[in-house]
Amino acid sequence: MDMQVSFLDRLFEAGLLIETGVDGLYGRSGQFEDVIAAFERLIDRTGGPDGAEAIRFPPGMNRAYFEASGYMKSFPQLAGTIHSFCGCELDHVSLLKCMEDGQDWTKGQEATDIVLTPAACYPLYPTIAKRGAVKAGGQLYDLQSYCFRHEPSKDPARQQLFRMREYVFMGPQDQVMAFRQRWMDRGTEMMRSVGLDVHIDVANDPFFGRAGRLLVNNQRDQNLKFELLIPITSVEKPTACMSFNYHQDQFGLKWGLHFESGEPVHTACVGFGLERIALALFHTHGLDVAEWPDDVRRVLWG
Amino acid sequence: MDMQVSFLDRLFEAGLLIETGVDGLYGRSGQFEDVIAAFERLIDRTGGPDGAEAIRFPPGMNRAYFEASGYMKSFPQLAGTIHSFCGCELDHVSLLKCMEDGQDWTKGQEATDIVLTPAACYPLYPTIAKRGAVKAGGQLYDLQSYCFRHEPSKDPARQQLFRMREYVFMGPQDQVMAFRQRWMDRGTEMMRSVGLDVHIDVANDPFFGRAGRLLVNNQRDQNLKFELLIPITSVEKPTACMSFNYHQDQFGLKWGLHFESGEPVHTACVGFGLERIALALFHTHGLDVAEWPDDVRRVLWG
Repeated sequence: MDMQVSFLDRLFEAGLLIETGVDGLYGRSGQFEDVIAAFERLIDRTGGPDGAEAIRFPPGMNRAYFEASGYMKSFPQLAGTIHSFCGCELDHVSLLKCMEDGQDWTKGQEATDIVLTPAACYPLYPTIAKRGAVKAGGQLYDLQSYCFRHEPSKDPARQQLFRMREYVFMGPQDQVMAFRQRWMDRGTEMMRSVGLDVHIDVANDPFFGRAGRLLVNNQRDQNLKFELLIPITSVEKPTACMSFNYHQDQFGLKWGLHFESGEPVHTACVGFGLERIALALFHTHGLDVAEWPDDVRRVLWG
Repeated sequence: MDMQVSFLDRLFEAGLLIETGVDGLYGRSGQFEDVIAAFERLIDRTGGPDGAEAIRFPPGMNRAYFEASGYMKSFPQLAGTIHSFCGCELDHVSLLKCMEDGQDWTKGQEATDIVLTPAACYPLYPTIAKRGAVKAGGQLYDLQSYCFRHEPSKDPARQQLFRMREYVFMGPQDQVMAFRQRWMDRGTEMMRSVGLDVHIDVANDPFFGRAGRLLVNNQRDQNLKFELLIPITSVEKPTACMSFNYHQDQFGLKWGLHFESGEPVHTACVGFGLERIALALFHTHGLDVAEWPDDVRRVLWG
């Protein structure tokens, strides 16, 4: 914890992250953004030859899709719904009175049709399902968006609004498994090429409550989730900077994603936590990019 | 209206925008994003020599700053507050029951400390105020973020989540006025260089209710807001693709932004509606970028 606070303070002092008064919500300097852009170009060079279809969703998604995803079953504490004022002029007068009196004015806000995107690939599955059958050889997508998770923290590597870059493959089981393995190998190689010390381990999602324990065990027993870990503020508890998730045919069944034959597709997604990777680079090589090792700079900026 | 729907349908058919089931919430294709990236590079080349400090805030801001901004006085209908589930395991059981029964489960969501950013520069003023006095010659900032406005619409140029690029200058009145005028000239020149038919006119913000009428008149009478307009789905009602806003010393006083002497700074911001500019380009030059005029392609892609 102390190391997290001290790294956060150093990032503020160096101006790389900018305080906003809310834990886990930070501005980024031009230099910080430049590191993220450079790492994304490395991702482009690595994944580019695969010919994925690029789609960029905004940071919010259709609430109906979000509800159907089951996210509120597994991670209710992390979701962010968007609410608006929908009243008349008289309601507005009351609202302003309420704010003036320092009372809680947010009670009158009503839920809109939009929920913040919890992971870049959430809006993808229902979108692709509407396009009809998936090709026999499978289909590959390239995504990136800001994501929201309500978990205020002093750990700079646990932000409430952060960017996730993802590749998603939907197709036959063997190719889906091969896709995931390929990115475990590529991810390890990419991180080593920029001087980061990594290892990959089996992992689980933060399922809510005691009932969630079962889901955790099931996910781990079946090796459905792996994470690429890099020490940032702790060597004992390194930070997950990539995750590699195999959904079996769960999403195929849930969203009606199927082959021409009617059989559900298998899916997997591979995600890069872009802020976490930038933070791992700053933590490993120092806060002054000009001082980073030449070979790392060469990989990132050519 | 019909022209708006038909343009939106053509954008869907061409795959440039992607339906999500919510009006004003769309995915973007790689090609659409490439046009936005190219136009941002044109902005960089134009504004780069001014040496602005680049800051990138995430798409949400501190609710306390949002409340202090007065946004709920002027535009309550457009704001989006972020709410989360903060209950225990028993509450979670009730929540899931509520969802299963098809009832409104969002009533139990509680407001977080974060509100969606309504315009890219909103988080900037309180951030800079904390840094102390503003330099006598003024300070210049370069911002970009996704912004939210709750105004569902079939007009592709009126989206609920869209990107705004901004320059903000804070300093002495005469330099602030000169900054705004410089960007009105530059904006006109930039749009002409990519083949867009523009004019600039005095404008006003969409202040809420009858009381808002006074604010509209005041803003127009004092020439505080101009917009750069480009015909997209209507020649009679062209779309605002840039805005040029002079805040006098209002923000200086509100946020405590002052010179060493204690005198409040004047401020102005210049905003680019990035999706609107991309849509103006597609509407003017056609949905196939390969068919755009050579001189336009040369300005955008070199």
